[in-house]
Amino acid sequence: MATVKLWTDSDVDQSPRVKAVFDDIRATRGSDFVNNFWRGLANDPATLERTWNGLKEVMITPSALDPLTKELIYVAVSTVNGCGYCIHSHTAAARAKGMTDAQYGDLIAVIGMASEANRIVTALGIPVDPEFEVTS
Amino acid sequence: MATVKLWTDSDVDQSPRVKAVFDDIRATRGSDFVNNFWRGLANDPATLERTWNGLKEVMITPSALDPLTKELIYVAVSTVNGCGYCIHSHTAAARAKGMTDAQYGDLIAVIGMASEANRIVTALGIPVDPEFEVTS
Amino acid sequence: MATVKLWTDSDVDQSPRVKAVFDDIRATRGSDFVNNFWRGLANDPATLERTWNGLKEVMITPSALDPLTKELIYVAVSTVNGCGYCIHSHTAAARAKGMTDAQYGDLIAVIGMASEANRIVTALGIPVDPEFEVTS
Amino acid sequence: MATVKLWTDSDVDQSPRVKAVFDDIRATRGSDFVNNFWRGLANDPATLERTWNGLKEVMITPSALDPLTKELIYVAVSTVNGCGYCIHSHTAAARAKGMTDAQYGDLIAVIGMASEANRIVTALGIPVDPEFEVTS
Amino acid sequence: MATVKLWTDSDVDQSPRVKAVFDDIRATRGSDFVNNFWRGLANDPATLERTWNGLKEVMITPSALDPLTKELIYVAVSTVNGCGYCIHSHTAAARAKGMTDAQYGDLIAVIGMASEANRIVTALGIPVDPEFEVTS
Amino acid sequence: MATVKLWTDSDVDQSPRVKAVFDDIRATRGSDFVNNFWRGLANDPATLERTWNGLKEVMITPSALDPLTKELIYVAVSTVNGCGYCIHSHTAAARAKGMTDAQYGDLIAVIGMASEANRIVTALGIPVDPEFEVTS
Repeated sequence: MATVKLWTDSDVDQSPRVKAVFDDIRATRGSDFVNNFWRGLANDPATLERTWNGLKEVMITPSALDPLTKELIYVAVSTVNGCGYCIHSHTAAARAKGMTDAQYGDLIAVIGMASEANRIVTALGIPVDPEFEVTS
Repeated sequence: MATVKLWTDSDVDQSPRVKAVFDDIRATRGSDFVNNFWRGLANDPATLERTWNGLKEVMITPSALDPLTKELIYVAVSTVNGCGYCIHSHTAAARAKGMTDAQYGDLIAVIGMASEANRIVTALGIPVDPEFEVTS
Repeated sequence: MATVKLWTDSDVDQSPRVKAVFDDIRATRGSDFVNNFWRGLANDPATLERTWNGLKEVMITPSALDPLTKELIYVAVSTVNGCGYCIHSHTAAARAKGMTDAQYGDLIAVIGMASEANRIVTALGIPVDPEFEVTS
Repeated sequence: MATVKLWTDSDVDQSPRVKAVFDDIRATRGSDFVNNFWRGLANDPATLERTWNGLKEVMITPSALDPLTKELIYVAVSTVNGCGYCIHSHTAAARAKGMTDAQYGDLIAVIGMASEANRIVTALGIPVDPEFEVTS
Repeated sequence: MATVKLWTDSDVDQSPRVKAVFDDIRATRGSDFVNNFWRGLANDPATLERTWNGLKEVMITPSALDPLTKELIYVAVSTVNGCGYCIHSHTAAARAKGMTDAQYGDLIAVIGMASEANRIVTALGIPVDPEFEVTS
Repeated sequence: MATVKLWTDSDVDQSPRVKAVFDDIRATRGSDFVNNFWRGLANDPATLERTWNGLKEVMITPSALDPLTKELIYVAVSTVNGCGYCIHSHTAAARAKGMTDAQYGDLIAVIGMASEANRIVTALGIPVDPEFEVTS
């Protein structure tokens, strides 16, 4: 029930600009599978390129946080933003990167507990303690 | 600008039930500082107890995810839920647990990138790939 | 720090259309106090009229739910929508309509508990039980 | 399309810790039906126990607000948090507790009206009137 | 999977109050098609009338912004509020009012980019520059 | 009350990588003023570069939607995401690009009306009409 066409591999072959991104997705991930998100983004090559380059830089290029931790954060953000598709794809990605059932249980527990506390704090209008302010 | 009174230590001393929680917060954290969240929750001892016990179990009791990773997830959830107080208190907690500037930069980048992709997926109504579904 | 001018009573006196709404607010509430929301809305008389008429119909005209219950729901919605102003004004309204401290404690507890469960359900992608579907 | 296995009654019978919670759910509600939320939570007994105990304390134990009012608030929170499952299960719960069609109409109207006003207030950056601040 | 009955045309014919709104929807839009939103709202004639009158005034009556621009804003709001139904119906409405594929690509890009920046700003707690404050 | 240091121009002068972005912001906008968002992002040069390049591509490079329409959409998204800073900065940007008071009134009205309808649709669980589905 997408609002746009999801590009098949045949469609992709018609557009060199889209094909270049799909080729890079496949090479970077070492897998022939390209999920529906990219097949929908293919309708706008500029956004396809910018989004893929951004995600590659943030999620895949080695940096201070390990890849699994980034996926856990990604699932948490997707949950609160209410994106069912993203929850499914990144929970799968987290499992592929080694997330155990116990770690997943912890992730769910923290998302739930933080959301409860977040709403209570907001309802009560709790002011920030001076101790939490950054001094630079 | 809270909607309730923030209990001072003198107020706390008047209520054995509230005092027991504050004492446990101080003992568990090894610090005399009790932040405003608990001082607002003190108005309802039942919620104070349940929330503190839940947070202690989820965030402090050793489990599959290390304490810093839990704080990173907590900050991510608080950001998307839009709780400024929680962002401040748990960013401070993450730093106290060793979060480096580079890790914090990664956290911010993942929150931003995930939020961008979340909204695009939602706008396009991308259907979940069968590959992401759990088979049990 | 509003993005628009907040109309003073002198400003209101210059616009018969805005004044008519302010007069009705005062008469309906039986109070001379008109809060900042209406003073900001005054910049667009059409939205001022539609919003006031809608709020009067929904929140003030006697109907199936009593006025206090409506205020509790309003505070809950405002909390999850993250509107600090609305939380403050409608928590005050709920108190003016008789909300006790114990009822307020319950309200906060339900908001928090529901938010925790909401996020966990979303993260786990729980499918709706057939038992919950309406048959008409 | 859950991200976890939904436990059948046979699965539950294999885990005494999970079975104890399911038994308490059935006894407390006086019904053999256990909905999918608990069948998903069963994957993490600690979160299952904490969530059930919390929901029982907040939603079922008699307190200052009557059970139907709590369900109305729960539906309102679930709507704004965007949890379709929770909307369905708690709208059904509200009806089971006596919610009339007219009360349901009121609930929907308040959710909609509050959301409209919430967003307008946020867009205009309306500052809190001093009259709404708590003095303690 | 609605929580209420969706009224068929035969149901509508039984209620003069609902029929009057449906007639006005058909006459105003110049189309016999009435979508499910109105068929669900029909259960509460007061909310049906107020919502239709409000939407007609805001979205259809000629005003400072052209109809297509209003639909683009509506899709953006619906995306961030996470209303899949509304995204579908108003993306269709935008297309019917002439939205090109390139304009749709821009809309998606702005929604995504703004959401990314919004969350980063919130996470960092950036204070408003004095230059952005209104002086009246 | 930021969680990070806001870089002064002197700080910026110490980092060639940050300075290059600030120089491009100033040249692109034709103004010496650089707002706090960029001064906070300066703590992470990679995110600073990617965000600026993305925003420049999406919001400033001429494309299918005119610059003012993009700002209106940006304000709408920022409102629903609850980012007060972003609302202020982009409402100012919209005014600088010619937004009239009447257009602003329309923007506010559409944001409010859409949010009301969004929540009602979600609460009622309205199913998407087949007429709104894309056929490709």
